[in-house]
Amino acid sequence: DQPLMLIAGPCVLQSDAISSQIAEVLTRINERDDVNVVFKASFDKANRTSAAAIRGPGMAEGLEMLGRIANQTGLPVTTDIHLPDQAAAVAEVCDLLQIPAFLARQTDLIVAAAKTGRPLNVKKGQFMAPEDMRYVVDKATAAGNGGVMLCERGTFFGYGRLVNDMQSLPIMRSLGVPVVFDATHSVQRPGSGQGSTGGNREMVEPLARAAVAIGIDAIFFETHPEPDSSPSDGANMVPLGRFEGLVDRLLQIRHTINSVGQLNGTAQAS
Amino acid sequence: DQPLMLIAGPCVLQSDAISSQIAEVLTRINERDDVNVVFKASFDKANRTSAAAIRGPGMAEGLEMLGRIANQTGLPVTTDIHLPDQAAAVAEVCDLLQIPAFLARQTDLIVAAAKTGRPLNVKKGQFMAPEDMRYVVDKATAAGNGGVMLCERGTFFGYGRLVNDMQSLPIMRSLGVPVVFDATHSVQRPGSGQGSTGGNREMVEPLARAAVAIGIDAIFFETHPEPDSSPSDGANMVPLGRFEGLVDRLLQIRHTINSVGQLNGTAQAS
Amino acid sequence: DQPLMLIAGPCVLQSDAISSQIAEVLTRINERDDVNVVFKASFDKANRTSAAAIRGPGMAEGLEMLGRIANQTGLPVTTDIHLPDQAAAVAEVCDLLQIPAFLARQTDLIVAAAKTGRPLNVKKGQFMAPEDMRYVVDKATAAGNGGVMLCERGTFFGYGRLVNDMQSLPIMRSLGVPVVFDATHSVQRPGSGQGSTGGNREMVEPLARAAVAIGIDAIFFETHPEPDSSPSDGANMVPLGRFEGLVDRLLQIRHTINSVGQLNGTAQAS
Amino acid sequence: DQPLMLIAGPCVLQSDAISSQIAEVLTRINERDDVNVVFKASFDKANRTSAAAIRGPGMAEGLEMLGRIANQTGLPVTTDIHLPDQAAAVAEVCDLLQIPAFLARQTDLIVAAAKTGRPLNVKKGQFMAPEDMRYVVDKATAAGNGGVMLCERGTFFGYGRLVNDMQSLPIMRSLGVPVVFDATHSVQRPGSGQGSTGGNREMVEPLARAAVAIGIDAIFFETHPEPDSSPSDGANMVPLGRFEGLVDRLLQIRHTINSVGQLNGTAQAS
Repeated sequence: DQPLMLIAGPCVLQSDAISSQIAEVLTRINERDDVNVVFKASFDKANRTSAAAIRGPGMAEGLEMLGRIANQTGLPVTTDIHLPDQAAAVAEVCDLLQIPAFLARQTDLIVAAAKTGRPLNVKKGQFMAPEDMRYVVDKATAAGNGGVMLCERGTFFGYGRLVNDMQSLPIMRSLGVPVVFDATHSVQRPGSGQGSTGGNREMVEPLARAAVAIGIDAIFFETHPEPDSSPSDGANMVPLGRFEGLVDRLLQIRHTINSVGQLNGTAQAS
Repeated sequence: DQPLMLIAGPCVLQSDAISSQIAEVLTRINERDDVNVVFKASFDKANRTSAAAIRGPGMAEGLEMLGRIANQTGLPVTTDIHLPDQAAAVAEVCDLLQIPAFLARQTDLIVAAAKTGRPLNVKKGQFMAPEDMRYVVDKATAAGNGGVMLCERGTFFGYGRLVNDMQSLPIMRSLGVPVVFDATHSVQRPGSGQGSTGGNREMVEPLARAAVAIGIDAIFFETHPEPDSSPSDGANMVPLGRFEGLVDRLLQIRHTINSVGQLNGTAQAS
Repeated sequence: DQPLMLIAGPCVLQSDAISSQIAEVLTRINERDDVNVVFKASFDKANRTSAAAIRGPGMAEGLEMLGRIANQTGLPVTTDIHLPDQAAAVAEVCDLLQIPAFLARQTDLIVAAAKTGRPLNVKKGQFMAPEDMRYVVDKATAAGNGGVMLCERGTFFGYGRLVNDMQSLPIMRSLGVPVVFDATHSVQRPGSGQGSTGGNREMVEPLARAAVAIGIDAIFFETHPEPDSSPSDGANMVPLGRFEGLVDRLLQIRHTINSVGQLNGTAQAS
Repeated sequence: DQPLMLIAGPCVLQSDAISSQIAEVLTRINERDDVNVVFKASFDKANRTSAAAIRGPGMAEGLEMLGRIANQTGLPVTTDIHLPDQAAAVAEVCDLLQIPAFLARQTDLIVAAAKTGRPLNVKKGQFMAPEDMRYVVDKATAAGNGGVMLCERGTFFGYGRLVNDMQSLPIMRSLGVPVVFDATHSVQRPGSGQGSTGGNREMVEPLARAAVAIGIDAIFFETHPEPDSSPSDGANMVPLGRFEGLVDRLLQIRHTINSVGQLNGTAQAS
């Protein structure tokens, strides 16, 4: 049975102290045989609702911070990129490149990322059918052979709300790629005039359980020692003190799923 | 740990022979300690897309058929009603009354059903927020004390597709009532000009796994020895020959959920 | 050029005094050559969000009230029905029978209404594609020959909001039937946990202008001398004092549309 | 009364011959007093569904082509940009910079475009509430004073379909900016697994009429002498031979709207 890939970290890079505090917990979790941890943090929140919102340390400083985490912990690291010309520099530090959902249709960004040879984690656009991620996979595969994962992070469902179409998990898996569930951004509540994106932390665990039970290859959470102090996504984050318990519960579900049989894309099924 | 309620049967009553064949499998499943089976079939499909579609035997004959199943098997039985004046007659035969999703806002129907003293299984309207089922619960509770369950069966998501907002399960549970997941109608694909409602049977198990992992009180499936010969919903049904295997896999997931801890409404959570 | 049918009235029957006050304005509007007015009011709001909400005088008293309006004013009258066995009695008083959107798929209701020989105004379900109203037309046409109109009143668009897909107007017209635009219920904001349905009166005129410019056969408004005192839909209603001005603006747009050419279903077009 | 701004052109720059053919018609239309024409074409379709799709001549050659159109016709020209570092070069040739809907949340792109001092035409993201375009306006206004227009081009409505929420026009206008209606992309039918985006040309005129009747400041169409030969968006385009007739009909509606009174944001209304 494949270990579950666990992508986790604070939303945005703040200080080495906070990153280290989170990385310490992640390192401990990574000692389990049934999970492979990847540390994730953003150096730039490039599409905040409001221009006044905090964006992060920028690429140069952010990559240094990520490099220090990697060195200290031995964990692979990942971050998201927003422009094609960021891909090469980021690929020198990061083991996995993440493409934001809003940018899932930007051909040049996908191609530049794929050309680095690093694997990609492309989030399904909130405005895209899961079937249509096939073309994203094709774009990436034609440009590089590092591999592609597709990530469910919620789909636009009326103003102010996202919905996870859980059918997207088997549909995207049937495209022949590993599938990630983003349990943090799925519970966002887009602003509808409030100036920032809200969230609903209590829904993280139910949705994560559902995704693991359907069968996924990786899961993504943001976690923070004090979520409400995070400059971004605080409302959706798992408090660090509860993170190991949550992961443990999910891995128990996964073991059961492994024993009853993972569903393969649209294949098996009832 | 509470047994899972399993509501199952053919979509619509056809012949005693088919009902018996299905009931035989259900009776065998019901011998398990961790599941309580309720036999379900409709006597009238009152809102078929096309007037030419088969509707069923009607109330009088249908109730006789359901009564025979109940007598032969000892299983409780349920069916759906469409008009207030059907409630009393149906309540004499059925242990549970189901209210169709399209009719979830019809006050008189809810009240008439609740007044029978039987418990109700009210499907969330495809056009309703889960929070708004609170008023349905209030209408039923004010009229009778048989109890109410709320059922997730998919929400309107663009023409031709439904989506399960899995957040509806904890939201409706937080209203203080048991929650049902309808794994058959959730995978319907409404017509969009085709004259009948299609479906996608392969998605039944993934969604059922997800719902069980989130935590539900009951699950509803339609099953048939030859789904493609069913006059309604064939595309969504679980073939009878695969039904026990499916139920067994779901119950293994449920046992794990029971051991790691059921989520209670919006309460626990990460 | 066909006169525009204007269906209007208070939402629900309250008192003869209020009905007469509204009918007086409608009678004056009806003197124009370019408009035919139908008085509309409900005798029962059968699907209020909350059981505690006011429902109206009931069928017997309501039909008497509608009959008095018809006698006093000479205007044709219409109301909505909820159960098949209401159809015959209502058809004795009303010139047009309205089928609520939630009930647009209930075969027996459509058939009973059509059998009266009166024309029907069937609202497109909030959960239906406009193409699928074809089957509703077929059900009605097979059962009676009074004619059918289809009404756009908004489509479910995430929790708490409806959207008018204005493409539904030419799509439904291409089914060969007259099309109505319901400018009042289109601006509803369903509750999402608030216990009643809100609305946004300022959007009535923009949407009505849009519908008239696309080309419709009838338009429906609720109006009230004091909307905020109405037991239902007050937030969406046009204040009676502004009603004639609104109708006049819409008719000016219609005259222009008549002179540049009505669009016929999906036909003409650019 | 303000002239209507008419933004029009082929989707993507192909040859000078085709551009000239279109520009000739546009120049003739521009002689009217009630309309101001802006020529629009893309130099790069940067987010095509499939990597194999034709993208255009690129920025350098594209700007030369646009410059030639501007010189020959005297018409102002506009194009869309995808990366912040394209803004300055494009602003030297173009009088108006267009921001694609998928990129409406990319802060750096908005800021770079606004800093050129040129006015912006920002399309509302298919995944955004109209109210939330307020923050886009704020981002642009803080960075430059060329002015901003907001454009309705359809909102995600289930897989495979967009809907125009016509309420977005008065809502965005109430933010204090001119509003554009994109009558071409609004009728797109996103792929849902087909590899390219389809469309429905017959819906262009009904929707354009609706938008003009509500009250807009500008309208955008793609037109082509042979739409079916266009490398992109052919299914949505207005054939050039029918373009003047369409514009004339819309301007007649606009004159009526001007005489009955434009609606100002959420202000007037019924």
